[in-house]
Amino acid sequence: MRRQILNLPEKAPEEALEGLALTNPTLIAYDRERGLVTRATPARDKVGLVSGGGSGHEPLHAGFVGSGMLDVAVPGAVFASPTALQVHEGTVAADSGRGVVQIVKNYTGDVLNFRIAGELAGDDNAVATETVLVDDDLATQSDDGPGRRGTAAVLAVEKICGASAEAGADLRTVAEFGRRVARNARTLSFALSAGTHPGETSPAFTLDPAEVELGVGIHGERGTGRVPFADADTLIARLVDPLVTELGCTRGSAVVAIVNGLGGAYPIELSIAARAVHHRLAGQGITVARSLAGSYVTSLDMVGVSVTLLPADADLLPLWDAPVRTPALTW
Amino acid sequence: MRRQILNLPEKAPEEALEGLALTNPTLIAYDRERGLVTRATPARDKVGLVSGGGSGHEPLHAGFVGSGMLDVAVPGAVFASPTALQVHEGTVAADSGRGVVQIVKNYTGDVLNFRIAGELAGDDNAVATETVLVDDDLATQSDDGPGRRGTAAVLAVEKICGASAEAGADLRTVAEFGRRVARNARTLSFALSAGTHPGETSPAFTLDPAEVELGVGIHGERGTGRVPFADADTLIARLVDPLVTELGCTRGSAVVAIVNGLGGAYPIELSIAARAVHHRLAGQGITVARSLAGSYVTSLDMVGVSVTLLPADADLLPLWDAPVRTPALTW
Repeated sequence: MRRQILNLPEKAPEEALEGLALTNPTLIAYDRERGLVTRATPARDKVGLVSGGGSGHEPLHAGFVGSGMLDVAVPGAVFASPTALQVHEGTVAADSGRGVVQIVKNYTGDVLNFRIAGELAGDDNAVATETVLVDDDLATQSDDGPGRRGTAAVLAVEKICGASAEAGADLRTVAEFGRRVARNARTLSFALSAGTHPGETSPAFTLDPAEVELGVGIHGERGTGRVPFADADTLIARLVDPLVTELGCTRGSAVVAIVNGLGGAYPIELSIAARAVHHRLAGQGITVARSLAGSYVTSLDMVGVSVTLLPADADLLPLWDAPVRTPALTW
Repeated sequence: MRRQILNLPEKAPEEALEGLALTNPTLIAYDRERGLVTRATPARDKVGLVSGGGSGHEPLHAGFVGSGMLDVAVPGAVFASPTALQVHEGTVAADSGRGVVQIVKNYTGDVLNFRIAGELAGDDNAVATETVLVDDDLATQSDDGPGRRGTAAVLAVEKICGASAEAGADLRTVAEFGRRVARNARTLSFALSAGTHPGETSPAFTLDPAEVELGVGIHGERGTGRVPFADADTLIARLVDPLVTELGCTRGSAVVAIVNGLGGAYPIELSIAARAVHHRLAGQGITVARSLAGSYVTSLDMVGVSVTLLPADADLLPLWDAPVRTPALTW
């Protein structure tokens, strides 16, 4: 039984956003009325960046609002898309006259509501928009259906677009960087246990103690299969190897690696997972040019990890390294 | 049953440190031979800062090594003090000619081993040392016995001493700042469930679903009592109110507040706890001058939170605000 630090479950996302803003008053502001998280001090004369989606993936997206990353985050209820009107408000709020890039994870509701918002924004030529669709989850690759889900690569998209926008790039350039990252990054995950919804006491699904869910989604969607429980090195290899193959990495390739906790993995586990990723790649002659390990794109308190690999193109690294100052990512 | 992302349990701390260093190669280096985490680039001509203690509290202490905070962290096994020789090596490694402040949480083993290391360092006048003892846990206050335990206030001590050392203060001044923070800061915690040791599948203790452990320690030590499970606002009030009384805060007081996750609380829960802390203090006319909310001083995957309050003296705030660049704290 998992009890929670919670008041009213249905208020959890907005209370959490209020708490995040109270903790980071110099970085972000929360407009409860409009359902938006904005920078405490809006940026001027740069391409705006808006992203959003269901809550339950914290610190995504509100934790990535700030200088060098997003201008506005538009949170929905837990695992539910924000409304089109909310996204529209967010898009307008993100605009400082040079247009807005909408970063959208590939889920039906998000895609629909961001599309409507984009149309609303353009209706009286109010705000020029470009959309970057993030669909990095290798587990959901198929020839038909809704396509791959958007997961932790959205962090890389937001970071790279954010740096490009901060450097003064135009709308199309910022969007093109984002599309390149989305096109090239792939993610794969496993879970040892599912997350527990606010107000519930049991996880969304249970696993046989001898099994691990491979390719699980960030809403607790079932994965591509179950594999035997094993040590960290073995489980991480099951993520890294298919990503390396899919990306066509070979000896001498260099990648950016994001080792992402799904909410319930604690720091020792994440660092051990990160070690395993580094070793597995090194063993194949692949250089980790940059890496991150932390809980960035979560699924409530799911115990698990995702690995995202992105080819470390020479022109992306300066954007990756550029300063960022948000509640959840700062350097 | 809690399964873990783990290889050999007994190797977990060192594998985690290796992973942390691989993820943050520009910030820290891990010397497995000597059992030390140092800055990637050692500082010159400043007072050195060394801290350490048992593992299982990550990101503490290794995650706080870097510019503006520690020079060296000396990790023990899970919940076990590092050896005196290890601390001695760390003390020597932290010295750049201006002496070393040892920051020690108040546990018998740590106190003993840091004391021996301090004596070893002074034996041939090799390194001048000062010790700051951190004993902030209000739950263990009593007139006799080993005194209060050291918990999350160590983060504030490391931050303030780190900034003071970086600004060029001498050994005694840096230590005095640390002692003041340790003297004035108090912490109180509650847990909804205990942490699970690496390699185990059950938590260290179990609670009745109707109860919450108040005043729990970061090694899973039992608290001062059990109180009925309640909503976040109610539970947080049980932490904040005694702290306010103990610190003698009144209407118009200003504090630094650290809302610390104990390892298993996920971001929504921590932000809701942070909101509750802010509201509870505001309701008493107390200003939160600065605050942090995150999992900084943990107890494996314990689900719970601690609140640390520190009076926001005018000369402390610039040191709090000074730049810091470590794996787990950067601004």
